[in-house]
Amino acid sequence: MTRRDFIERTGAASYLTLLGLGMIPEANSQPLDLQRGKADKKIIILGAGLAGLCSAYELTKLGYQVTVLEARSRPGGRVWTVRGGTTETEIGGPSQTAQFDKGLYLNGGAARIPHNHETTLHYCREFNIPLEIFMNMNEGAYYYSDNGTGLLANKRVKIREIHADVRGYTGELLAKAADQKALDQDLTKEDIDKLIAYLKEECDLDITKKYKGSERHGYLRQGGYGDQIPQLAEPHSLHDIIAGGLFHPAFSNVSEYTFNQQPVMLQPVGGMDAIPYEFAKRLEGKIQYQTEVKEIRKTQPGVRIVYKDKAGQEKELKADYCICTIPLPVLRNIQTDLSSDIRRAIDFTSYMNTGKIGLQFKRRFWEEDDKIFGGISRTNMDITQIFYPSYNFMGKKGLLKGYYNFHDRAVKMGNLSIAEREKAALEQGSKIHPQYAAEFESSFSLAWQKIPYSQGGWAEYTDVQRKRLYPALIKPDDEIYMAGEHTTHLTAWMAGALESAKAVVDQIHRRVNAS
Amino acid sequence: MTRRDFIERTGAASYLTLLGLGMIPEANSQPLDLQRGKADKKIIILGAGLAGLCSAYELTKLGYQVTVLEARSRPGGRVWTVRGGTTETEIGGPSQTAQFDKGLYLNGGAARIPHNHETTLHYCREFNIPLEIFMNMNEGAYYYSDNGTGLLANKRVKIREIHADVRGYTGELLAKAADQKALDQDLTKEDIDKLIAYLKEECDLDITKKYKGSERHGYLRQGGYGDQIPQLAEPHSLHDIIAGGLFHPAFSNVSEYTFNQQPVMLQPVGGMDAIPYEFAKRLEGKIQYQTEVKEIRKTQPGVRIVYKDKAGQEKELKADYCICTIPLPVLRNIQTDLSSDIRRAIDFTSYMNTGKIGLQFKRRFWEEDDKIFGGISRTNMDITQIFYPSYNFMGKKGLLKGYYNFHDRAVKMGNLSIAEREKAALEQGSKIHPQYAAEFESSFSLAWQKIPYSQGGWAEYTDVQRKRLYPALIKPDDEIYMAGEHTTHLTAWMAGALESAKAVVDQIHRRVNAS
Repeated sequence: MTRRDFIERTGAASYLTLLGLGMIPEANSQPLDLQRGKADKKIIILGAGLAGLCSAYELTKLGYQVTVLEARSRPGGRVWTVRGGTTETEIGGPSQTAQFDKGLYLNGGAARIPHNHETTLHYCREFNIPLEIFMNMNEGAYYYSDNGTGLLANKRVKIREIHADVRGYTGELLAKAADQKALDQDLTKEDIDKLIAYLKEECDLDITKKYKGSERHGYLRQGGYGDQIPQLAEPHSLHDIIAGGLFHPAFSNVSEYTFNQQPVMLQPVGGMDAIPYEFAKRLEGKIQYQTEVKEIRKTQPGVRIVYKDKAGQEKELKADYCICTIPLPVLRNIQTDLSSDIRRAIDFTSYMNTGKIGLQFKRRFWEEDDKIFGGISRTNMDITQIFYPSYNFMGKKGLLKGYYNFHDRAVKMGNLSIAEREKAALEQGSKIHPQYAAEFESSFSLAWQKIPYSQGGWAEYTDVQRKRLYPALIKPDDEIYMAGEHTTHLTAWMAGALESAKAVVDQIHRRVNAS
Repeated sequence: MTRRDFIERTGAASYLTLLGLGMIPEANSQPLDLQRGKADKKIIILGAGLAGLCSAYELTKLGYQVTVLEARSRPGGRVWTVRGGTTETEIGGPSQTAQFDKGLYLNGGAARIPHNHETTLHYCREFNIPLEIFMNMNEGAYYYSDNGTGLLANKRVKIREIHADVRGYTGELLAKAADQKALDQDLTKEDIDKLIAYLKEECDLDITKKYKGSERHGYLRQGGYGDQIPQLAEPHSLHDIIAGGLFHPAFSNVSEYTFNQQPVMLQPVGGMDAIPYEFAKRLEGKIQYQTEVKEIRKTQPGVRIVYKDKAGQEKELKADYCICTIPLPVLRNIQTDLSSDIRRAIDFTSYMNTGKIGLQFKRRFWEEDDKIFGGISRTNMDITQIFYPSYNFMGKKGLLKGYYNFHDRAVKMGNLSIAEREKAALEQGSKIHPQYAAEFESSFSLAWQKIPYSQGGWAEYTDVQRKRLYPALIKPDDEIYMAGEHTTHLTAWMAGALESAKAVVDQIHRRVNAS
């Protein structure tokens, strides 16, 4: 009986018991540990993103002969770190070259590693990639609501103030409801007493169970030497918070509460592309860059790939198996012998529209003036969020992420010219940081839906798509296997790409050794 | 009219308006910026802790002739980083030498810099001290309650599970109370609707406004490749959480909510003692180490300090002014001409009992097995908390803080022998991390109340002490000025020590230039 069978048969309560006894690790994944066996096959891997690189790396370790075809001149795909000199030309757009100073970078795609993504951490460990904290939340960063009314609208407000006050008022309301016996049918008298004691602590209620403000909200003046007694700031009223628009989902804590974004998050020191480059280093000579796939053909058995090489020459390559990691929107324009079910999935799976801009400033005013070291400010303006760097604190210059947006906002921003995007990022960002104007130096922006060879942020299945389209992608089509984040229930994350690679390597190796 | 007068006269509402308009920085402190003037005085500074070092540094910049007398053979006082080879002998105790490997350290005293402590950050910037994130909270760390009952007692539980579930249940209760019109006298109908929408998001309630569990609590199995659909873990019941003892204040979020501990916190790369050593580097030849102060005498005008030098010889030194930063419990045993009010404050001000232990392990099992990168596990056992290092992630060996406790628990632990402390830390810690036994290598523990020249963690004024005793400490006594965290409303923090130094330097310089 496998662990999974056991868990499924005995149910969640037993699972918790076993977990409590330390009998079951929480792990969702283990390092790939296949027996070496027959490996006398040629395998072509399409795409040197994380799924392709990891597939190639693991197959090579097993003894297979692999060739990776990659359209770009670099590995990593959507794991891409933009530095000074990085050039990109979006579909239909002019070329853009980053002017960033040495040491400053923008992780254009993947930017954070959840502490629970074991597979990602496994490869970081295997490759000795130094990691540091990625600060995903910061009580000292700002909210800015531009469509509310009253005292808190159209104004930056420290996140801590809203957090402390909302916690205070909701705790006060709940304690009051408990006093009015509104919870009596849900909880025992004893549990209600303990709940109230908890709320006083959790929400900083006073002895009368009221929220009258808190040092957690912040000070007019901090305590200091001598007679400098701390002076608390007044709390905002709950009504002002609501009227100001701060209950809008743009300001929700969902991102820091969700499993994949809860503290702690990590990042490789110096840029996320350390991960793909470490894979690529171990695949020397096996990756053909600037090689655009034109056709994916079945030779029954086997595959034949037609591609255009660096020199623009059309060529072909045959192999026993193919792992195709090309993002679905890109595959739409490649001729294939894939089954009609797969082609339907390729054509109709939704992808996320998303964009980012890196803004370099002369001075790290967010640290010097605003005491913000990492974390995110949030707004309902089109820029959606501003990310502050979690590295090189108090350095001379700095680079922040001036927007990271999604859906319609990303389309709107992406459809602007490069100069207009910069202007919009600066105009909106200036409302939160008036220092923008005086300190700005240069930008680099990207709209993933317009980036060649990606054409989208990540697969974003609707429930119907997941049910009707997805199943075709996770079965081999003769000798062709699909991999990439879009073949997982962990889309958008590097861990998804890596998990898919491990899974298809496992499938192919078993097939080869069963035959 | 000063900014402070203005704020006090116009009140908090106006302050918020001005703050909103960006007219008032939140800053509580500014870098010391005194005009150079007359500085033809000799000043003796007692103690090379942060207050003494900062006083000496700023006075030297102004042109004064300073001598710092320090009892220890190192600068920093309670800002102390223990590394391999560090030796300490507690009062009445045997000598202890740390066996830690190179690169591993224990910040025995000050260990974290709040992002709001401008003065501390100011000196880090002035000295180019590299900073990194100190991770003060981690949803992936554990709670362990040993005095509850039921499913969650005597068992480690991931913090995320308790956070997500308590948030869920309290949100559900509040939404239900709102539906039952229990909030109608506090909020308008419209605000109630918005509050309920907010609660659904904030607490992950379902469409019926019930909490039925959440991915925020964690998974039985995370989503993965192919048909590996994520399987949610069941939530704990609110009753189990309460019965398990997890509403005990030992598990409260106070430390991460409080102004001084909210994210983000920082630490110098390589150890907190970078700060005192950078000061000391700039005071070359001005600090006399291993020099124990015996008497503090007034010469009217001026001061005469009697001390025992490195060789054990009694000597004396005269000066125009004296800044005394010696912790009050140590001052109790020094003969002085200080006023009776000051002596009363010296004798009766309470100090915190507090201790820490550093535990070195062969392997960073908390990262490898438990996916804990920095942050704190909390328990109501005597160890109180376990701190995981925020540096050197995935390194070979690791050092964690096996306890950091206070009050009676610190006294109890501190009164044990060094070997018994280690044993207690390992026994209790093993309940959270069973890997302790197999991986442990060596420890170094300290009880601040027993550390010579400190004899306590920090001044911990009761309200009565603050009212009756404190005022004497913040006035000069003829030519003697008291400085140190105990002379502030920011006790226990490095920023308090630094603020006090800036303030007394300012006072002395004004006095010299007024005369």
